[in-house]
Amino acid sequence: MRLLGNGQLTGSFDTDCTATREVLSRVGDKWSVLTVVLLGNGVLRFNELRRALDGISQRVLTTTLRSLERDGLVKRTVHPTNPPQVEYQLTALGQTLLAPVCVLASWAQQHRAEVYQAREEFDRASPR
Amino acid sequence: MRLLGNGQLTGSFDTDCTATREVLSRVGDKWSVLTVVLLGNGVLRFNELRRALDGISQRVLTTTLRSLERDGLVKRTVHPTNPPQVEYQLTALGQTLLAPVCVLASWAQQHRAEVYQAREEFDRASPR
Repeated sequence: MRLLGNGQLTGSFDTDCTATREVLSRVGDKWSVLTVVLLGNGVLRFNELRRALDGISQRVLTTTLRSLERDGLVKRTVHPTNPPQVEYQLTALGQTLLAPVCVLASWAQQHRAEVYQAREEFDRASPR
Repeated sequence: MRLLGNGQLTGSFDTDCTATREVLSRVGDKWSVLTVVLLGNGVLRFNELRRALDGISQRVLTTTLRSLERDGLVKRTVHPTNPPQVEYQLTALGQTLLAPVCVLASWAQQHRAEVYQAREEFDRASPR
């Protein structure tokens, strides 16, 4: 699979679809996208992230950060203070993901009114 | 929130985070991303999509396509043949999503070896 100049992908999906899909299912997760976007601005502490991601539970943020750390996208640093201070930042690999997820987040922000309108029309046309 | 030239987003997440997150949770879904990428190549029938998305169940593909249709990203056309032939294509709004998702899919493909390696190292360092 190869990205063409017109923004389309060419080649077989079958060959490498599973691997790409598996990676996508992680990096395409909404909380991961927003976490990467936030860490794009610099180092953040757990509670700073939690406040910025208004609505995320402590458990989900912990899981999201651990998955991002496991994927090599986020680095976790524990400072030996009392209580220990834990900071998160993007790795070099995480930095490469910043542009793609920002483009997606920006699309979502720019087109959300159209998406909401489409949903309303769809629900009116096919009520449950 | 605003996309800067350096690929970072600025501004408050709080103001519009919920809406953006809600739209992201849909368009960031792995099957949605891959479906949009496939439909970027043109009109496809249900079974063509299913074959290309090797591993997707009939139920999940139906749900994915219905959600994309509801979001105004995909148009579903039923041809009055016997049996009826159902085709799917991107709407104008769906076309605008093509570039962002292709960039993300391309990133996933390009960096999946690094992600897999990071996972192996993480699991070795912190076994369950």
